[in-house]
Amino acid sequence: MPLVVVGSVALDSVETPTQRRDNVLGGSAVFFSYTASFFTPVRLAGVVGDDWPAAHTEMLRSRNIDTTALHVIAGAKTFRWTGRYMDNMNDRETLDVQLNVMDRFDPELPEEYRRCKYLFLANGSPELQLNVLDQCSGASLVVADTMDLWIRSAREDLLKLLKRVDGLVLNDSEAKLLTEEENLVLAGKKTLALGPRFVVIKKGEHGGMFFSEHETYVLPAYPTPDVVDPTGAGDSFAGGMMGYLAEQGSFEPKTLKEAMAYGIVAASFTVEDFSLDRLKTIRREDLQKRMESYRKMLMF
Amino acid sequence: MPLVVVGSVALDSVETPTQRRDNVLGGSAVFFSYTASFFTPVRLAGVVGDDWPAAHTEMLRSRNIDTTALHVIAGAKTFRWTGRYMDNMNDRETLDVQLNVMDRFDPELPEEYRRCKYLFLANGSPELQLNVLDQCSGASLVVADTMDLWIRSAREDLLKLLKRVDGLVLNDSEAKLLTEEENLVLAGKKTLALGPRFVVIKKGEHGGMFFSEHETYVLPAYPTPDVVDPTGAGDSFAGGMMGYLAEQGSFEPKTLKEAMAYGIVAASFTVEDFSLDRLKTIRREDLQKRMESYRKMLMF
Repeated sequence: MPLVVVGSVALDSVETPTQRRDNVLGGSAVFFSYTASFFTPVRLAGVVGDDWPAAHTEMLRSRNIDTTALHVIAGAKTFRWTGRYMDNMNDRETLDVQLNVMDRFDPELPEEYRRCKYLFLANGSPELQLNVLDQCSGASLVVADTMDLWIRSAREDLLKLLKRVDGLVLNDSEAKLLTEEENLVLAGKKTLALGPRFVVIKKGEHGGMFFSEHETYVLPAYPTPDVVDPTGAGDSFAGGMMGYLAEQGSFEPKTLKEAMAYGIVAASFTVEDFSLDRLKTIRREDLQKRMESYRKMLMF
Repeated sequence: MPLVVVGSVALDSVETPTQRRDNVLGGSAVFFSYTASFFTPVRLAGVVGDDWPAAHTEMLRSRNIDTTALHVIAGAKTFRWTGRYMDNMNDRETLDVQLNVMDRFDPELPEEYRRCKYLFLANGSPELQLNVLDQCSGASLVVADTMDLWIRSAREDLLKLLKRVDGLVLNDSEAKLLTEEENLVLAGKKTLALGPRFVVIKKGEHGGMFFSEHETYVLPAYPTPDVVDPTGAGDSFAGGMMGYLAEQGSFEPKTLKEAMAYGIVAASFTVEDFSLDRLKTIRREDLQKRMESYRKMLMF
């Protein structure tokens, strides 16, 4: 089943302790779409400027990603993010953000998008997320991401959103900020009490935690030794998870857990090179193979 | 099979964001012994002063822990540690350390101890650990712990030790310090290359990683919402792991993985109250029950 994602499309400049890449393809909707496209057709909504290389759009289309709602604004520039990773490759600092076209991003979804049953609201203001949600009132599975900026500056809208989504995906530090609770198990449960039917707390190199009314579980990250650039890992995680759910057409507890695992496995490939470079070298079979090794790793 | 542990026996004063306990039973050999005693008889070697409450010794004995080599030094004081946990309950600062009798700890093991097949060298100077190892030359499974102090100040002896032990258990920050490698997968492999047949990296609230020639895996912590005092969690982990191995009388890969899981489950009980208070309320069946829930949590 097709899956809609609304989020950022970016040109990133990334510095790690040993390497640097400038103006590479990035953005939450891009990492999400590419990863989800291993499982299901995707419809991407976003905005770019006229500095956006058309080749990127072509590449996305070649992956069965619908870019009808990827709008190019003439005379404006694409969203740009510049960041630097610390030696531990987990902490990072943002060196520069140029919102550019993202500042005015107010998506009007085409009819085909609105009819989709699976919707991912990638990180964006809760106001924008609510606006998109209004347009997709028939969706049967809606999952949102959020970040510290919105938790601090738009808490009221965020709380409105949480009452209307099925799932929320957020980082450990964001979950602590949202709930004012340092214990992640309690933070997850408190987040759940805010409305969503399930909550996923992403812990970066330590994997992720899942919370629903009847279940709490933790899955570790897949232990790859080749961490080159963690940018996009969280969005790849969400893309793998939602892509698998859309492919399966179900969100039973069992399917949700497999989806978590696929998200974790997909993210482990993403971090193995800059931008989409590692993901571009793999096929669905490679995800499947690592998934089996991950499943085996957790059996005893 | 009986299991020997040589390590610290202490009186701890612990402050958490909400509570405080003074002069409670602690020390690596104590947490290790008590946890291992769910699985197998234990022989404890350590030293205390004449301020040591005899009731503690009685309690250990009642658990089938041999205290023949727990020496009481007249006119001297027991090792004392005072620490404070931060809001995240993972980071802590040491407020005070009084080595007291530990300063002169130089164990001469009784014959019965020397014949044991299973030996755990809890955190202590590598010189002391090597001395104990010399006394137990017939042991078939020797596992050691270490800490940043020894990595910095006694690296040469530590490297000697690593060539002679079967397993090493250490924290994530210690593994990074030892190998000068920030990626934990690589740090684990580099540690393995220093000699041990297996290495366990403890990640606190994030669980642990296992490394051997043919296997690398990560297991998450059991997600308890009741984290009251993390003191002793690492030693309880080691006690659960070694206790299970000694009980099974084998260290096949399959048994080692189950042992890792038992260590993780045991540690999740330890953190649920101060000192041994939570462990004192449970029986082997409770470990078994949580183990099954942990096993199920990781199946998909």
